[in-house]
Amino acid sequence: MQKYAQILDLVRERNPLVHQITNYVTVNDCANMTICFGASPVMSHAPEDVVDMIKIASALVLNIGTLDEKQIEGMLAAANGAKKYGIPIVLDPVGAGATPYRTQTAERFMNEFPISVVKGNAGEIGTLAGVSATVRGVDSGNISGEPKEIARSFAKEYGCTVVMSGAEDIVSDGKRLAGIVNGVPMMGKISGTGCMASAVCGACIAVSDPVDGCITAMTALGIAGEEAAKTAKGPGSFKPTFFDAVASLTNEQFMKSARISEYQ
Amino acid sequence: MQKYAQILDLVRERNPLVHQITNYVTVNDCANMTICFGASPVMSHAPEDVVDMIKIASALVLNIGTLDEKQIEGMLAAANGAKKYGIPIVLDPVGAGATPYRTQTAERFMNEFPISVVKGNAGEIGTLAGVSATVRGVDSGNISGEPKEIARSFAKEYGCTVVMSGAEDIVSDGKRLAGIVNGVPMMGKISGTGCMASAVCGACIAVSDPVDGCITAMTALGIAGEEAAKTAKGPGSFKPTFFDAVASLTNEQFMKSARISEYQ
Amino acid sequence: MQKYAQILDLVRERNPLVHQITNYVTVNDCANMTICFGASPVMSHAPEDVVDMIKIASALVLNIGTLDEKQIEGMLAAANGAKKYGIPIVLDPVGAGATPYRTQTAERFMNEFPISVVKGNAGEIGTLAGVSATVRGVDSGNISGEPKEIARSFAKEYGCTVVMSGAEDIVSDGKRLAGIVNGVPMMGKISGTGCMASAVCGACIAVSDPVDGCITAMTALGIAGEEAAKTAKGPGSFKPTFFDAVASLTNEQFMKSARISEYQ
Repeated sequence: MQKYAQILDLVRERNPLVHQITNYVTVNDCANMTICFGASPVMSHAPEDVVDMIKIASALVLNIGTLDEKQIEGMLAAANGAKKYGIPIVLDPVGAGATPYRTQTAERFMNEFPISVVKGNAGEIGTLAGVSATVRGVDSGNISGEPKEIARSFAKEYGCTVVMSGAEDIVSDGKRLAGIVNGVPMMGKISGTGCMASAVCGACIAVSDPVDGCITAMTALGIAGEEAAKTAKGPGSFKPTFFDAVASLTNEQFMKSARISEYQ
Repeated sequence: MQKYAQILDLVRERNPLVHQITNYVTVNDCANMTICFGASPVMSHAPEDVVDMIKIASALVLNIGTLDEKQIEGMLAAANGAKKYGIPIVLDPVGAGATPYRTQTAERFMNEFPISVVKGNAGEIGTLAGVSATVRGVDSGNISGEPKEIARSFAKEYGCTVVMSGAEDIVSDGKRLAGIVNGVPMMGKISGTGCMASAVCGACIAVSDPVDGCITAMTALGIAGEEAAKTAKGPGSFKPTFFDAVASLTNEQFMKSARISEYQ
Repeated sequence: MQKYAQILDLVRERNPLVHQITNYVTVNDCANMTICFGASPVMSHAPEDVVDMIKIASALVLNIGTLDEKQIEGMLAAANGAKKYGIPIVLDPVGAGATPYRTQTAERFMNEFPISVVKGNAGEIGTLAGVSATVRGVDSGNISGEPKEIARSFAKEYGCTVVMSGAEDIVSDGKRLAGIVNGVPMMGKISGTGCMASAVCGACIAVSDPVDGCITAMTALGIAGEEAAKTAKGPGSFKPTFFDAVASLTNEQFMKSARISEYQ
């Protein structure tokens, strides 16, 4: 556990700048969660702006939750910059499988850019992996097949790290495969938990190996969610409490509470 | 009261997908309130995306709070889809009466689409109804004339359900006319209460008759607001408490606290 | 102190409409903070809309935090209207110095419009003042030189009021120079504190002289932040508590807690 807990420290020490192009629904939550985690968010989407912003960033997070033509233009320009400067990219394919426009846009980014991490729920990842999946809006969907093997083979095929969120979060780069069972159902009762997880994956992979970074990110949020659920009276009070729990999460608490399984 | 309370249950059971094209100020509140109410929000505005998204939705909510040409394009495409597939539309004409652009856009949607529900404050509804109204920014305005009769005749003229929010919320479809006096002034001290009400009207009319659904939506939020105001220390703490109160609202509490008058 | 405390009352009495064109990250916070302060926010960015909206507003706040071509178009139309009708403009040059696009856009507004107040951190103001500055993303940067003198001479050169936020907030119109040391580090641990300060400067200068108004705005937020930090358990709970503290701030509390220095 210690190597994951150390990534928490590294993020807080280095305070990486995480450039995010994301949806207008949960963007404020992403910004605040990035800060609570110890990194710095910067949101910039204009093609004229992203080219210079990405140069000074340590990770790029692309979230297609409320995509449109103009936003895709900005994402393409930023992703080209990230490719050029070797900056890791996290793709959150929100709603892939729900509409062709979302599916095709996610596929386009997977195909044209060296995506480091693709993070989505089972339906979104299943859709991109080409297995039968049902996605309803931007909620979690269902897939046919064994999630762990789908994540692993999809990661292998694309040469990236796959994070498939769920009751057990799966992280795989095609070789390593880990599962994290931290977290509480209340995390699904607020808008933006998935988007915040992507932002935090960006913060972690800015200072570490993608698999280690994503395991740390998903575990840390899960533990903080468990902590927050102890005192929250509902989804409304859960959110600020969740932010507090992330900001105050210690190494010791992480090591004591992490429930990570590394599979063969 | 029971028939309204049952709509609460129906929303929670069926978890309708509510497609929302809304302003960037309160969109996060709308998403979270939709979830707290037991429905699922999906925000999508690109013309390329809405055509497929509306097919899987159970209601469409159009809120012109921060409208622009691109957004109107998306709204038109979504409304055409809703019309084609028989999906009910809620229109929130934010700021109608404050500027011609807002008034004309609201009128265009009223005239070109089968709007199920138009929900606004007295100034906005008065403006669309053609009575003398004063609107200042996006705040509540004043109208000359009797609000109940304005709501009723406007509903009759357009063949829709009108919700006019205020100290007494008025709901009418031209025949039935109801007033709800639940709610507290603190609800006007946070940004987004009106927008959240429109989102929740969308959730309710997805599972019920528009008049019944809007009565349920406005009453439920009013009761939750009363509950939240008991412990909130100001507008900041009111908001999370309000969300908690909506999420935990029971049928029993609804029936005990609802103050709905059905007029002739 | 009394003249500043009275501005708090004036805002609450007159409830000025503050037209804001701002970033999509913190826009909800700006709207709620404007309300908590006693003013009314209206967000409107479409060129077709702003021309009519600015006519009924008492101040215009332009924040370039997530600027793009379309938004700049709207800002230009609104600023032209503000100029025509003599409505004071606050410019928040978020990220000036971080990218040329942001720097050039901020400079364009400084040069083409009668900006009343430009409010930024040391890096942003230093960049616009032409001194050596380092800016990283949208975080506070560093400048070479004496901040107070940079603020004063920049204000003199442009004939505007400069607010340079920091551990000591500096306010100067080229003649008068004041420093405010209210505030707590927690204010930097949430996204949007700077944006909210700009919104509140807009509310204050709508009813007062720009220097007096900005001193009041920065001091009031600083005092409220100190108050909120007493009970907040982290950044998540700090935010709602901060809003509550602003909404409940009294004249007496302001006069007792204000730490304003007027320099020669």
